[in-house]
Amino acid sequence: MQDKILELLKEKKYLEVKKILSQEKTVDIAEILNDVSDEFLPICFRILPKDTAADVFSYMDSDSQEKLIKTFSDSELKEIINDLYVDDAAALIEEMPSNVVKRILRSADPEMRKSINMLLQYPKNSAGSIMTTEYVSLKRDMTVSDAFDKIRKYGVDSETIYTAYITSKNRRLIGTVSAKTLLLSDMNSKIEDIMDSNFVSVATTEDKEAVADLFMKYDLLALPVVDAENRFVGIVTVDDAIDVVQDEATEDIEAMAAIVPTDKTYIKTGVFETFLKRIPWLLILMVSATFAGSIIRNYENALQNGYVILTAFIPMLMGTGGNCGSQASTSVIRAISLGEITIKNIFSVIWKEIRVAFLCGVTLAIANFAKLMLVDRVSFEVSLVVCLTLVITVFLAKFIGCVLPILAKAIKLDPAVMASPFITTILDAISLIAYFNIATAVLGI
Amino acid sequence: MQDKILELLKEKKYLEVKKILSQEKTVDIAEILNDVSDEFLPICFRILPKDTAADVFSYMDSDSQEKLIKTFSDSELKEIINDLYVDDAAALIEEMPSNVVKRILRSADPEMRKSINMLLQYPKNSAGSIMTTEYVSLKRDMTVSDAFDKIRKYGVDSETIYTAYITSKNRRLIGTVSAKTLLLSDMNSKIEDIMDSNFVSVATTEDKEAVADLFMKYDLLALPVVDAENRFVGIVTVDDAIDVVQDEATEDIEAMAAIVPTDKTYIKTGVFETFLKRIPWLLILMVSATFAGSIIRNYENALQNGYVILTAFIPMLMGTGGNCGSQASTSVIRAISLGEITIKNIFSVIWKEIRVAFLCGVTLAIANFAKLMLVDRVSFEVSLVVCLTLVITVFLAKFIGCVLPILAKAIKLDPAVMASPFITTILDAISLIAYFNIATAVLGI
Repeated sequence: MQDKILELLKEKKYLEVKKILSQEKTVDIAEILNDVSDEFLPICFRILPKDTAADVFSYMDSDSQEKLIKTFSDSELKEIINDLYVDDAAALIEEMPSNVVKRILRSADPEMRKSINMLLQYPKNSAGSIMTTEYVSLKRDMTVSDAFDKIRKYGVDSETIYTAYITSKNRRLIGTVSAKTLLLSDMNSKIEDIMDSNFVSVATTEDKEAVADLFMKYDLLALPVVDAENRFVGIVTVDDAIDVVQDEATEDIEAMAAIVPTDKTYIKTGVFETFLKRIPWLLILMVSATFAGSIIRNYENALQNGYVILTAFIPMLMGTGGNCGSQASTSVIRAISLGEITIKNIFSVIWKEIRVAFLCGVTLAIANFAKLMLVDRVSFEVSLVVCLTLVITVFLAKFIGCVLPILAKAIKLDPAVMASPFITTILDAISLIAYFNIATAVLGI
Repeated sequence: MQDKILELLKEKKYLEVKKILSQEKTVDIAEILNDVSDEFLPICFRILPKDTAADVFSYMDSDSQEKLIKTFSDSELKEIINDLYVDDAAALIEEMPSNVVKRILRSADPEMRKSINMLLQYPKNSAGSIMTTEYVSLKRDMTVSDAFDKIRKYGVDSETIYTAYITSKNRRLIGTVSAKTLLLSDMNSKIEDIMDSNFVSVATTEDKEAVADLFMKYDLLALPVVDAENRFVGIVTVDDAIDVVQDEATEDIEAMAAIVPTDKTYIKTGVFETFLKRIPWLLILMVSATFAGSIIRNYENALQNGYVILTAFIPMLMGTGGNCGSQASTSVIRAISLGEITIKNIFSVIWKEIRVAFLCGVTLAIANFAKLMLVDRVSFEVSLVVCLTLVITVFLAKFIGCVLPILAKAIKLDPAVMASPFITTILDAISLIAYFNIATAVLGI
């Protein structure tokens, strides 16, 4: 596909390119343009039909968008920018370098510029930052047919026409009505009689994750957003909510792997940037890991005197502890971010993990004891020490693994940080302390 | 809230309960009913207005649904079941014990039963399993006003009216038209002239994750599903797609923590079930961890003779290796499931990770060397051995961490399984081999 188009471009067969692109969806055209070489990009874009150009542009990646803007005449830019949805325009501006931003804002119509600036002022990750200001608004005393007239008039420019918003004189939101209700109602019935005044709405400052949760809970297509004075300022649409769900999951996963989360994709993140995302936790964890080492050093002499064999089981003990801990912490962290678990559940969670720990610990200990005696042929005492430590480690792992994330959440930290790497480091030290104390007791080292 | 209602129920003030519930959204009513004690559940449900009862029922959790069904008379059950959306009814049946299922199917209308059985036959996680058969279908020669008439007539029972589907005589899907287009078109224009024949559709057997990806890529509200003979059989709606995104993320996260994924939530999964989800990997990883131990045992004598200090750095080396590996694997696994990375990218990914590894390795080694010399005051040779091993471990960790998930994907395994626990276990062994070999070379142990 890409190759065919490149070929045609090289041969200057622009009409054929136009024909091929016209059969593609805007999203796919955008992807094709992302891959077109710089020289052909402007030509390719210019042969797009006027009505899809802005739409395609909004789906392109920021690098290609920047390249294009640099080749745009002021009039071309004006046309594209003012055809964009406000939220796409705001998103674009956040990606562009300042000189490009200046040009964009200059070419935006006053109304558009006002809306863009409003959207840009909202904090990152807030409902305001993902909303759009283009919606259908109605008055309570309109009839259904008035409503349809208004939708026909302004519908083209609004992100969704499937929910219309009824506002009072002072711009308070007093109700919503779905296109479905409108279609199923009598043409002469009054909006105020069919509107739903028991609607869900969020504040502009609400966290976008909470917004996404509302979409999932109530199966919404759009969610109205109100400002501090409770005035209706915009809507979030489901296509943006679904992206939030995806992004939040990625951030959780990154945090769980001791990576400082970013919005950028893996491919788009540069080497040095990736390094900066990973090194902080690596350093912290490396330094704290040396604590486990110092415990071993305390027993250096004991090990020296005939018990160096004990060191052979350290990897297994630490590994199992880490795995048990990360299983518990991961389950709990996910449950927290899905809203299943709050601080209120902490005791029921602990009780559950303790029972799971008992089952896991005993199973692992039996399996391990058998292996130690039959395969490794180590002494009964050493096997005993290893397996006792194993049981205790599993208990501590499950306990710490489920408690830390909940506590983190309770003191407003990101629970995801309390995931395997962090927990493992703690458990390494604890399991070693247990190991050597039991060894001292049983073997008298 | 819950308490207040419970109080009123105890005092038999059902009218007041009814009043309170009537002000709540169906989803919230369902949540309240989930928490109502068994004795009051049927009463609570019966006082709900007829038109919301089925809706509320579909949002309740399966335990409460089962309890209710057992208290239903056949006529009550009939009423509820036939008011449900087909996909909700199918979902309900999958949750219920066989005797309840029999009752449900008996009370379903023939048409309903047919649709339910069709949905139930599709494989788990397929597009067919999350679709619904209730949609608005039009004929190409209808006019826009005919279309509106049909929507008004059948709209109430269909899951969405915002996309209508145009089918040919042989039930092939030939186009789709959005309510927006209908509303913005002239009443007399023919459907075939305004319909979009360049629509996205999926096969019933398509994986639901791929379905969700299409929703995100094309910002869809609904997606048509066609069978093997390319006949139009149903639609998936965005509210179900968003749930898929959430569930898939959870499954990835669980797999990454060496937990066998399930559909059940953490709270709903019993202790023994949780144990069964966790123990398989724990056993596998414990046994493979002993391999690392056997490496240490090979050097038992060497350690015995004055180099037991080397064991003190094993936790730090293994820990850091594990963390570097899980950072790389997690980033890559997530990128794969977001569709950014395929086997084609393997070399660019490796090249990137190698450079990141260089930066991380050197930084960690320098930090560690300084600490060893200045804080721990160990000999220069030992510090050298430790830091050389550290650099090599980081390289191997980043390399294995990025390669294994991609290879897993290439041979159709779940990449998420190649996450930290698995990678860590491999790295423990490798880093120890490197450690002792370097020690032999430098210290001549």
